Order: sequence, then structure tokens, then C-alpha cells
Amino acid sequence: MIKIGIIGYGNLGRGVEKAVNAAADMELAGVFTRRDPKSLHPVSGAEVYSVEELEKFAGKVDVMVLCGGSATDLPRQTAEYVKLFNVVDSFDTHAKIPEHFAAVDKAAKKSGKVGVISVGWDPGLFSAARLLFGSVLPDGKDYTFWGRGVSQGHSDAVRRVSGVKDARQYTVPVEAAVARVRNGEMPELSTREKHLRECFVVLEEGADAARVEKEIKEMPDYFADYDTTVHFISEEEMQKNHAGLPHGGFVLRSGSTGENKHLLEFSLKLDSNPEFTGSVLAAYARAAARLSAEGKCGAMTAFDIPLKYLSAYDDAYLLAHLL
Amino acid sequence: MIKIGIIGYGNLGRGVEKAVNAAADMELAGVFTRRDPKSLHPVSGAEVYSVEELEKFAGKVDVMVLCGGSATDLPRQTAEYVKLFNVVDSFDTHAKIPEHFAAVDKAAKKSGKVGVISVGWDPGLFSAARLLFGSVLPDGKDYTFWGRGVSQGHSDAVRRVSGVKDARQYTVPVEAAVARVRNGEMPELSTREKHLRECFVVLEEGADAARVEKEIKEMPDYFADYDTTVHFISEEEMQKNHAGLPHGGFVLRSGSTGENKHLLEFSLKLDSNPEFTGSVLAAYARAAARLSAEGKCGAMTAFDIPLKYLSAYDDAYLLAHLL
Repeated sequence: MIKIGIIGYGNLGRGVEKAVNAAADMELAGVFTRRDPKSLHPVSGAEVYSVEELEKFAGKVDVMVLCGGSATDLPRQTAEYVKLFNVVDSFDTHAKIPEHFAAVDKAAKKSGKVGVISVGWDPGLFSAARLLFGSVLPDGKDYTFWGRGVSQGHSDAVRRVSGVKDARQYTVPVEAAVARVRNGEMPELSTREKHLRECFVVLEEGADAARVEKEIKEMPDYFADYDTTVHFISEEEMQKNHAGLPHGGFVLRSGSTGENKHLLEFSLKLDSNPEFTGSVLAAYARAAARLSAEGKCGAMTAFDIPLKYLSAYDDAYLLAHLL
Repeated sequence: MIKIGIIGYGNLGRGVEKAVNAAADMELAGVFTRRDPKSLHPVSGAEVYSVEELEKFAGKVDVMVLCGGSATDLPRQTAEYVKLFNVVDSFDTHAKIPEHFAAVDKAAKKSGKVGVISVGWDPGLFSAARLLFGSVLPDGKDYTFWGRGVSQGHSDAVRRVSGVKDARQYTVPVEAAVARVRNGEMPELSTREKHLRECFVVLEEGADAARVEKEIKEMPDYFADYDTTVHFISEEEMQKNHAGLPHGGFVLRSGSTGENKHLLEFSLKLDSNPEFTGSVLAAYARAAARLSAEGKCGAMTAFDIPLKYLSAYDDAYLLAHLL
């Protein structure tokens, strides 16, 4: 049995917990938190420890799955914890991946551990699709669309607008743009042409809806470059219709071999983004444990790990049934 | 430059030739044939040699791409040629893959060469999708649909019916079945419910259309288990509308993490099956050359090879731009 630890117990941590408990070859050694361990009550009844106690678990946990945020937690945690454990994270700040990889790689090579980074679905599975598609169809163009799904970063940004009590932001791919790509047109698409942003907002009592809507739509980086719609709804409607965290998207590559055109597409439609991402992290935790058992060390991504390491099945089964 | 040889110069061989010539890091060392070398005139002007001369190229070609058929050529050739060269094939008799792998592995471990087998799109890319999808969404069900596309085996079977001058057979996924899978219904689908077979037939003069149609539709293995339609067309129409070899398909996995449902899908839409397959083989030939340069040997499949080996880009580029 592969012994898994979870560091950080938000939505993603709970997703990993569910995936580990569903896997026949893994067991949950414990959940580690910066909060008071007594304040957490994991669904599966797992033990909860303070991150202060992590050192005591060196040699007792095969892989730690890091479920903190990419903004401030993971840039510090992954390179730190890989000194003691094999680790897996879903670091998703695309622009900072080379830096994160280098820091984790240095620490992991020193400790002899495996540090698998950025293995959610984007980065992660979508990255793998982009690499595979570009390699087998070199003369072509990549398109990645996200959604329809809840962007937690954008939802948080809306919540920070004064007068907003609660908010949910959906990223929505522009159907006409996806259709043009599928049609082999290889269009040049601006940010605005690729995605719409749809906000559902519960106002504080007495807040000025027009002012809130204007502030959201003009927010730089988050909304100014997009066609954004804002719907004001009641708290009840928010609870009833927007409690979930669905997401998904498409990676498309349109290209040709001379005069013949080809279209490759990978798509995900997820009812729960954190549960699916947790399931991906669990599969890469299995890979990390195996690679470590083979004596490998250093930072790795979805590009470096043979697919067979992700599976609970052995090589003979895979050859006979999945190839 | 990676020096590539092509053994067998049919549609697939020409596809590999095109892909190798389009790649900046590969060059074509020659085409090898069992026919009279003087009878072949490769589009790219590549040199043509008899397979009898293969031994002379040991040490001068980095990877031989085997473009023969799975029925009789590859079961013999791959394990034989891996004694002298790194080789790549697209062996696609699913039921015999374990046996083929074992034979190639034994010979390759003895010679110290790399033998990459079964790396077209199915087996190959679709196999990779099935493995990846099953690993990240273990509680679910796989569906593979092929088409709409020309099946050369089925076209050949129709051509063997007496009275048939020429024929083209399209494998067509049943749209209603695909829709049910995409809808998360996880249906149990019979062979007949998954695919239709559509035949375009040019009759010999005086042949009995009704008898030909009956013989096609009742042919065991090929057609009896499917809803098959037969269209009789003129030679001109065959030339005009059915000269291409399009193909494609879908790998879907529908499943859940507890109460939340998820759908993963990988699809291909190919104007030319042999050109795209040739392009996939060229990417795996790059991987074979690199793995061999690292001292690896033995048989490998799409399950064993990290994706980064397929790409012409280096690790730093991939991390910064594709992850």
C-alpha cells in the first residue's frame, strides 16, 4: 500500500482524500494543516496533524500531496517539503513554472526525493495533450479553451468589489470560436474572442448595482479584456444554482500534413473541478511512489513520467487490455 | 540529425517520408523495399534500396520505421530488424500485442536496441488516452468509437466478393450512441449499436447487384454483426468522391468521483489516415533515437515513453511554453 499524506485541507485536499480512499493500492496516512488540527473533521475519519509535526512522518509517508494555493503556499512548500518527502503539487501559475521546477529540482536532487509539479488538468493533462499534439502534428496551431466553469480566482476578485456579498464567476468558451477551430480555419483569436465571463452576484443590502457592475466590468486583467455579463441574484438562488464547482475545457490542434488537414481534440467536462484535480494528483502520487522506489529523484512534470506509472494495473494487464 | 530508414513503401511509408522530410531534426537515409528498387520513385527523391542490403546500413541509420502490414509483415520483421536497428512499428492486431511485444523485447534486449511497437493512433495515441483516462478517473467506463473513415481491411473484404470491381468501406460511429455516452448515461452498447458500415461498390459488368449486396451484408466477422448499407456507384464516382483515406474516432471515459460526474474525451478527425499515422511514427522514431542514445533497450509502447521524448523542442522550451 502506498501511504499518502495530504497537506492542506480545502476543496482540493478533500478531493485527494476521496481519490486515495477509493484506490485499492493507497492508504491515507493523515491530513496535515496549519490550522488547529482539532478544528478539522475529515470526511473519511483520517487523522489530522499539525504541519509542525511533519518531520516525525519522514520515512512513514510515501508521498505528500500538497493542496495549498499557487500564489503563496506552493512556491514555498514544495521545495521545502521535498527535502523530507516525495511530493506532488498542482502549481498552476504558468509563467512561474520554470522557476518553481528549478527550485524543486535542486532540493529534490539533494534529498533524493521525487517532486512532481503542476499535475492538475491545466497545467497537467492539458499540457500533456499540447505536447503530444504538437509532436505528432508539427505543422499546426494549438488552441486551449477553458470552461464552462467556475474560476475561483475571478470569483474572489468579484467578491473583493465593495457592495458584493457573494459572487460566482463562470469562464465560458465562445462557441463560435470553438466552431471555427473545429472547422479547420486556424483563426487568430483575441482574448475577447475566445472566452466570455459571466458573473452571478449577491449584493450587500443597499449597494448600488450599476456601480458594482461597472467596477467588475472595468477591472483590469480579470475582466476589462473580456465581454462580461453580470447577473444580480438572491442568496437563495446562489445557494441553489451555484453551489458546485464545475469546470472543463478543450485543447485543440488544427494542422496539416501537406494538403491533408487534421484535427486533434482533448476535452474535459467536470462536475467538480477540485474532486477531479484531486483524482489526477492521486494518480501522480502513485507514479511518484513508484519512481522513487526505482531510485529516481528530482523534479518532474506530466512531460517526464511514462503513462504506465499512473495506473493501478500492471504492465501485462495494460498491454493486453488497454493498448 | 536523426537518420531514419523506411522499410516498406506503401501509403504508410509515404506518410513517414513526408513527416521525416518536414522535421528539422531528422533526415531520410533511404527507403527499403522487397520490390525491385528501380520500380520505386519516392516523392522526396530519397534513395531506394533492396531489403537484402539492410545489413550494410547497420550503424548508419538511427531508426528504421517499419511500414509493412500487421497480418504477415510485422510479426516477422520487427523482432528480426531490431537485431540490427532501433525500430518503430504500428502493429495493430490488438489481440496479438502481448506476443509481439515479448518477441521484440527479447530480441531488442539481446541486441541492445530499442523496439517501439504499436504506435499509430489506435493502438498508440488512443491507447495512451485510455490508460491516462482510466488512471485519473478510475470509477468509470471506456468507450472507443472509430470513424467516420475508410477501413482498408473491410474495403479489401468487399473487393474479394465476386462481381465487385472496386470498393470502399466506411466505418461510421452511431451518433445516438456517442450522444448517450457524452450525456453520462454509461450505456452497455452492442457491436451493432456502436458502429454502422457503409460500402460504396463498383460492380463488374453484368454482376448481380442483389447477390453482391447479400454476400457483403452476411459476411461473418466483417459485416454480419453490423447494420450495413451498400451503395452501387460508377467508377467515375469512386474516383471523384472516394479517393481519400480519411479516418478518425473518439476515446471517451465517463465516470464519477462519488456523486460528481465527469467526461473525458479525445478525438481525431483525419483527412489522411496514413499521413497522420506516418507523422505519429516519425515522432516515436525521434523518441527511439533519444532513448537509444541514453542507453535504453528493449520493447516499448506508448505507455512506456515519457511524452517529452516525442517533441523536437528541448525541456526548457516545453516547461516555459507548453506546460
